[in-house]
Amino acid sequence: MKQYRVLIDCGDKKGLVYKVSKLFFDLELNILSNHEFVDADNNRFFMRTVIEGDIEASKLSSTLNSELDPDVNIQIVLPVKKNIVLMVTKESHCLGDILIRYEAGELDANIIAVVSNYDLLKPLVQKFNIPYFTVSHNDLSREEHEAKVLDCLSQFKDIDYIVLAKYMRILTPSFVEAYRTKLINIHHSFLPSFIGANPYKQAHERGVKIIGATAHFVTNDLDEGPIISQDVINVQHDHSWKDMQRAGRDVEKITLSRALKLALEDRIFIEGNKTIIF
Amino acid sequence: MKQYRVLIDCGDKKGLVYKVSKLFFDLELNILSNHEFVDADNNRFFMRTVIEGDIEASKLSSTLNSELDPDVNIQIVLPVKKNIVLMVTKESHCLGDILIRYEAGELDANIIAVVSNYDLLKPLVQKFNIPYFTVSHNDLSREEHEAKVLDCLSQFKDIDYIVLAKYMRILTPSFVEAYRTKLINIHHSFLPSFIGANPYKQAHERGVKIIGATAHFVTNDLDEGPIISQDVINVQHDHSWKDMQRAGRDVEKITLSRALKLALEDRIFIEGNKTIIF
Amino acid sequence: MKQYRVLIDCGDKKGLVYKVSKLFFDLELNILSNHEFVDADNNRFFMRTVIEGDIEASKLSSTLNSELDPDVNIQIVLPVKKNIVLMVTKESHCLGDILIRYEAGELDANIIAVVSNYDLLKPLVQKFNIPYFTVSHNDLSREEHEAKVLDCLSQFKDIDYIVLAKYMRILTPSFVEAYRTKLINIHHSFLPSFIGANPYKQAHERGVKIIGATAHFVTNDLDEGPIISQDVINVQHDHSWKDMQRAGRDVEKITLSRALKLALEDRIFIEGNKTIIF
Amino acid sequence: MKQYRVLIDCGDKKGLVYKVSKLFFDLELNILSNHEFVDADNNRFFMRTVIEGDIEASKLSSTLNSELDPDVNIQIVLPVKKNIVLMVTKESHCLGDILIRYEAGELDANIIAVVSNYDLLKPLVQKFNIPYFTVSHNDLSREEHEAKVLDCLSQFKDIDYIVLAKYMRILTPSFVEAYRTKLINIHHSFLPSFIGANPYKQAHERGVKIIGATAHFVTNDLDEGPIISQDVINVQHDHSWKDMQRAGRDVEKITLSRALKLALEDRIFIEGNKTIIF
Repeated sequence: MKQYRVLIDCGDKKGLVYKVSKLFFDLELNILSNHEFVDADNNRFFMRTVIEGDIEASKLSSTLNSELDPDVNIQIVLPVKKNIVLMVTKESHCLGDILIRYEAGELDANIIAVVSNYDLLKPLVQKFNIPYFTVSHNDLSREEHEAKVLDCLSQFKDIDYIVLAKYMRILTPSFVEAYRTKLINIHHSFLPSFIGANPYKQAHERGVKIIGATAHFVTNDLDEGPIISQDVINVQHDHSWKDMQRAGRDVEKITLSRALKLALEDRIFIEGNKTIIF
Repeated sequence: MKQYRVLIDCGDKKGLVYKVSKLFFDLELNILSNHEFVDADNNRFFMRTVIEGDIEASKLSSTLNSELDPDVNIQIVLPVKKNIVLMVTKESHCLGDILIRYEAGELDANIIAVVSNYDLLKPLVQKFNIPYFTVSHNDLSREEHEAKVLDCLSQFKDIDYIVLAKYMRILTPSFVEAYRTKLINIHHSFLPSFIGANPYKQAHERGVKIIGATAHFVTNDLDEGPIISQDVINVQHDHSWKDMQRAGRDVEKITLSRALKLALEDRIFIEGNKTIIF
Repeated sequence: MKQYRVLIDCGDKKGLVYKVSKLFFDLELNILSNHEFVDADNNRFFMRTVIEGDIEASKLSSTLNSELDPDVNIQIVLPVKKNIVLMVTKESHCLGDILIRYEAGELDANIIAVVSNYDLLKPLVQKFNIPYFTVSHNDLSREEHEAKVLDCLSQFKDIDYIVLAKYMRILTPSFVEAYRTKLINIHHSFLPSFIGANPYKQAHERGVKIIGATAHFVTNDLDEGPIISQDVINVQHDHSWKDMQRAGRDVEKITLSRALKLALEDRIFIEGNKTIIF
Repeated sequence: MKQYRVLIDCGDKKGLVYKVSKLFFDLELNILSNHEFVDADNNRFFMRTVIEGDIEASKLSSTLNSELDPDVNIQIVLPVKKNIVLMVTKESHCLGDILIRYEAGELDANIIAVVSNYDLLKPLVQKFNIPYFTVSHNDLSREEHEAKVLDCLSQFKDIDYIVLAKYMRILTPSFVEAYRTKLINIHHSFLPSFIGANPYKQAHERGVKIIGATAHFVTNDLDEGPIISQDVINVQHDHSWKDMQRAGRDVEKITLSRALKLALEDRIFIEGNKTIIF
């Protein structure tokens, strides 16, 4: 018995659930869980089904592709560990949260490398026997630095996700293009509030009573892209911006790890600048 | 074009989604939204589908009933206003929250009566032109009082839900039996904490840092039964139990109104002592 | 025995707590509660003390004013009901929430009037025997309309707070100036996200996973000014913007009522664009 | 210039704030922050003041002790790192969260040892160069095992706190007595719900919609004692109890670390079975 995650999206039309579930039925597959959503605004259909049965992936794939219309996007994913790369700068809370989950076997992923523009977090990463690559940006233009980072990443094939776990440099469009839909970032504010530098200072100056964090796919720059998860925490007048930053770190790490879990379980569809999450 | 909510539950077996969605497809119905859940622990299948099409309810019902196995529970519900009765004692926050929504046309329900063991809230209810029945419990045994309440309720046919909006008397099993699955209560604690009398005093004595409220169907007594929704709020050492009560009222009313909305939209399945909520 | 709320703020210097508490001690007053905060960034001191004793307000005031430095701001407030005016447009949820609290005697305020640019909510308000004034903006410039509103308000002396309970018109600087520090607004977003028109549509388009509301004093325009309280609620991909609006209404009303309660209890200091809340 | 945290508690009487603040004023000390609370139910006064000045701790102590009544409890604490011991069993999430904060220099503490009844977490702890002691309970009575643990702990003088970071064994009263007010436990439920074994299974069976965690001082057994902090997370019908456990782990670790931070900053007073937290 094998298990598969089948992800389908296409323009909405009558009978989609029927057609797909008929195929599963004819192939004698068990449906373990099934979620659908019709985005009526954009007339699009999304479906995530976890199935179980005695069938090869290739056979499942060829059957679905031959029986469903050609405009239907079909992804068949085995529930195996994905390959992820972490990118960090100086702060360790998001990185550390992921490492501890990794060590506990809680993460459905292989961390194949950590890449940073500083070597500050190397001792922490090496404790967990994960390769750490320092690609300093000193004396380099943004483009030169990114070229080096891309070069470093190019040694790893089959990267499923690159997790920007407090990587504090803005990526160029070409970098984003190279890893389209694979870049997950944690932004240290409740987007779209406080886009840009030092959101905690901005939040402190604005006198907000709640701060938050946003995990999202990266599209054009660090603060845009489809939001995966958000969370918040209460603050008060006696929080300095550094207190806010400290409090915010807990929200950041939990929010990023939650988004990563959703990605590793293939629960996220990207539609334009939004996500559908099952 | 008519719209229906189809609720199905039965023992789980292969092909259920296929069979139901085939029937909808053959009847040329549009699926507007669809949710399923398989409770693997108890091997039960739940499905809520909102469909749209040019079909009479009787035809839809007869088709589903003739084509699906006899052990399949099928409910076909028209998205029309339900009839509800509110029961209250002295506190007005939950009642008032429902009345304001009702006045705004936000509630998919007709409030056909408010029943209370005091006449304290009569002036408030009468502002909204809703019949108010005082059934005093003075000098009556619990059974005698309930007989009078049941008598009062018996004049209303087709009660869909009775909302215990801070009705502070314990119901007997025979009352509960008479309105099985129709009684929604708000309990002023985060169940199962602080079952019984004066939960805020209990919470204050225990020194908790969070208090909550629980909306649930009533089974045997006021504090049991399948939970529909819960919510919480932070408290501190400087909250007296009366402060906790005051803070708790906001949580109570929002939690009850949220549960009522779920019920009015037929989004709740009851399974044993739990709910499945789509 | 009388009770007073003493609010003090001034530039910070050594011995302030000592000096004030000495005065209270010498006057044989009991301190029921006491909160202080030093804003180190701006070198300002804030103190709110609730005292009890056998003393007239005038004597208390003259003693504090003569013994403390002239740059110390001193407010002595009796814990009596404040006079408030509500301003609304078409939506009733915030208004209704305040009316129900008012009816229950939960609000430490007299609602002396409701002013609206529509007569839509007149029936609701009149149920509670509160004067309702419709000041239509039809065929009027913003300035002309506001002049009429100001004229309407001018009949009420001693307005402590004007609560903009979903008043959907932007106020001019001269209106804001006329009721400086007395205008409390509810903004239907988690500020500073989604400033401007229809924040729920903006939130829906941005694909956020949390929406919120912000109660704040009004300074220059409806979306600025010192924040008093904020709260949030989770949303999902299947929330249309109207669903978000519906869900947001509960957050709006609770957030506004919470802010109003803080104001009525004299718990808020305004410092620049921020609040200190005890 | 030195900084001290002065903690005072005693029976409430008039003039306490005045007397203490006068002493600070006479000693020419700056008050950096000051919090008081009067528990009117029990007629007790609590005060936490952070002061700064050119004074030795011994002089400050002798002055306060000689000038204040003998029934006043006075603690003068230097803001230095405290010594903590962690006790764990098999789960690493709470331990890991503390270790990552420790490595980042975020924790105002020296972790002088980790003690466990298993050697499972030894590799993780040793990465951080912290001594790990396995005291197996195999073939031992509870009393015999605890005697060995106490023996192990006895080599460390000046333990400020023992953090039970998912230590899954019940402590005997004599152990609790030996480290009275120094034992901080994380309980994997929103106490007082689900006291006892496997709270997540209990929560799943009860069908709750919110789960939580509670950090508390240990008095008689693992699930009692003054609560320091609590937090919650939403769950749904499709959460198995293992899903609840997974989701709960994030709440547990954040709640425990938050409680530990409060303890390390001397922000907690214990009063009977409650805490006052400044």
